[in-house]
Amino acid sequence: MTDEAAMAAALEQARLAASIGEVPVGAVVVIDGEIVAARHNEREATIDPTAHAEVLALRDAAAVVGDWRLEGASLVVTLEPCPMCAGAALAARVSRVVFGAYDPKAGAAATLYNLLVDPRFNHNAEVIGGVREDECGALLTEFFSAHR
Amino acid sequence: MTDEAAMAAALEQARLAASIGEVPVGAVVVIDGEIVAARHNEREATIDPTAHAEVLALRDAAAVVGDWRLEGASLVVTLEPCPMCAGAALAARVSRVVFGAYDPKAGAAATLYNLLVDPRFNHNAEVIGGVREDECGALLTEFFSAHR
Repeated sequence: MTDEAAMAAALEQARLAASIGEVPVGAVVVIDGEIVAARHNEREATIDPTAHAEVLALRDAAAVVGDWRLEGASLVVTLEPCPMCAGAALAARVSRVVFGAYDPKAGAAATLYNLLVDPRFNHNAEVIGGVREDECGALLTEFFSAHR
Repeated sequence: MTDEAAMAAALEQARLAASIGEVPVGAVVVIDGEIVAARHNEREATIDPTAHAEVLALRDAAAVVGDWRLEGASLVVTLEPCPMCAGAALAARVSRVVFGAYDPKAGAAATLYNLLVDPRFNHNAEVIGGVREDECGALLTEFFSAHR
């Protein structure tokens, strides 16, 4: 599965989030070319500050695999991960993080910090940003222009 | 409730973690002088890479309060938060983060990063490190000397 195809699935999740009034961010976890988890932000619905798409997808993927170590996995998400989510990717030991839109306000995988490639941590992940960037960013722009 | 008293409760959680073979880290959330959530690391038991004490305590606290915004809350944890957990504290908008032992390998609230006081984020938290540091650190040292 290409990163673009995985991002299409993440975008579908983001659209689902928007449809229930959640900030439209979606994420999938890909292992051996298959999507094993697909989630969207549900912070409002679950009253859970940690319910970002990435955290939920990583938790689901670990449950599917039966191991909290997701070595070899790719986390594919529509928005650049925040510190919590970049840290969650490290905690889950994913091999790659692919994101769509860059986040100038909280991006911790390229923009404000590069947490995933800091050699001082016990794990690092390859980072690929800007995949289907325009589509990913447009969803957020539309959402906030409608809700603010 | 003093930070030292809250840390005693976090230490009790850390001991519970050790008793079931989990890395001994405990965390509590204090609001208006009362402990509203107390959890320990349960990454192995739940096969969840995000099941650090802080994430679990913040989720519980939000459920208790009925709001993912924990403004005014203190997160009190035996070990300096990793990037995921420091980021979770920001995502939950806690006002203070109090920790015991410094973490030279992954500390993101003082040692390797100062994520909680970065003015570029939409939220910051006061950070107090080294509370009951020796007791907090000793639990970890004992655990790893027994398990490695």
